[in-house]
Amino acid sequence: MKFCSVCGHEVQLSVPPGDNRPRYRCAHCGTIHYQNPTMVLGTIPVWEDKVLLCRRAIEPRYGFWTLPAGFMENGETTAEGAQRETMEEAGARIALGEAFSMVDVPHVNQVHVFFRAELLDIAFAPGPESLETRLFTEAEVPWDAMAFRTVAQTLRWFFEDRRSGVYSMHTGAIRSPVPRPA
Amino acid sequence: MKFCSVCGHEVQLSVPPGDNRPRYRCAHCGTIHYQNPTMVLGTIPVWEDKVLLCRRAIEPRYGFWTLPAGFMENGETTAEGAQRETMEEAGARIALGEAFSMVDVPHVNQVHVFFRAELLDIAFAPGPESLETRLFTEAEVPWDAMAFRTVAQTLRWFFEDRRSGVYSMHTGAIRSPVPRPA
Repeated sequence: MKFCSVCGHEVQLSVPPGDNRPRYRCAHCGTIHYQNPTMVLGTIPVWEDKVLLCRRAIEPRYGFWTLPAGFMENGETTAEGAQRETMEEAGARIALGEAFSMVDVPHVNQVHVFFRAELLDIAFAPGPESLETRLFTEAEVPWDAMAFRTVAQTLRWFFEDRRSGVYSMHTGAIRSPVPRPA
Repeated sequence: MKFCSVCGHEVQLSVPPGDNRPRYRCAHCGTIHYQNPTMVLGTIPVWEDKVLLCRRAIEPRYGFWTLPAGFMENGETTAEGAQRETMEEAGARIALGEAFSMVDVPHVNQVHVFFRAELLDIAFAPGPESLETRLFTEAEVPWDAMAFRTVAQTLRWFFEDRRSGVYSMHTGAIRSPVPRPA
């Protein structure tokens, strides 16, 4: 960020009075431009003993497999966003279930939330951002070709809970793969 | 948003190719400025049979009571943000527990997440954004003077779960108080 989106003048990074961290501030109009994490919403769409995965047609992680998911939009709820992304990425009609996982990804300023879901039919089809959509049993899941660790972790929790017969909400954090010196 | 924060030229609102909703776009440098919901993180700090509430020293809802909470910052996890806000607003040292509620507030583009927490001591004290911090039994909670519906709902869920002896994750949405015609 170099310019104020309100008035077009240059911004500077400095700590506002009463605050405790640097923000982009406009000395001309006084606007403080806060920057905050974004939410990624998705589902675990289930049909019989299988889950629906999408192979990504876009970067990052082109060609790798993921659950249908994407950025939450203004004006929607988390449930609405998860359902919308499932339709956009996989053309899949679902009955949305409970929130199932919330995984923080602080090094990219994201929080990923996945909901359980039941497919209403198997007339799904790849949207513009997917190369392929396919149902997988647990044994068939391509663990070595997963796009994101939040998705792999969510699927591991899902299969564990399914085996136990009791589903609960899971939370966790994925840290940067490259540890930095303290 | 009127100006591009990257290059300072004027932006226009239009639907990018392959997208399905209008975004602020810069014709000069090509940047698309996405706008997404923000997360508010807080805790339900407990001491014996009481919960800790803060009376707000800032707008909106100056003078009304709330759980310690605030906007998630880049670079932190939801758990870290909830713990930080509890220290900033109430000077309270806590042992953070499980995520307890996630409440969507789509008309202001927010998602509020609250964690259970145990106070480590009662040496809490109002931070700069609180007028007062106080422990309340369920019977003492000032329901008519609560700052936000997400907080009141979270407290109702908390007291219900405490009575039942079983805590679980709760989700819901708070809609605009003024229904708009369809």
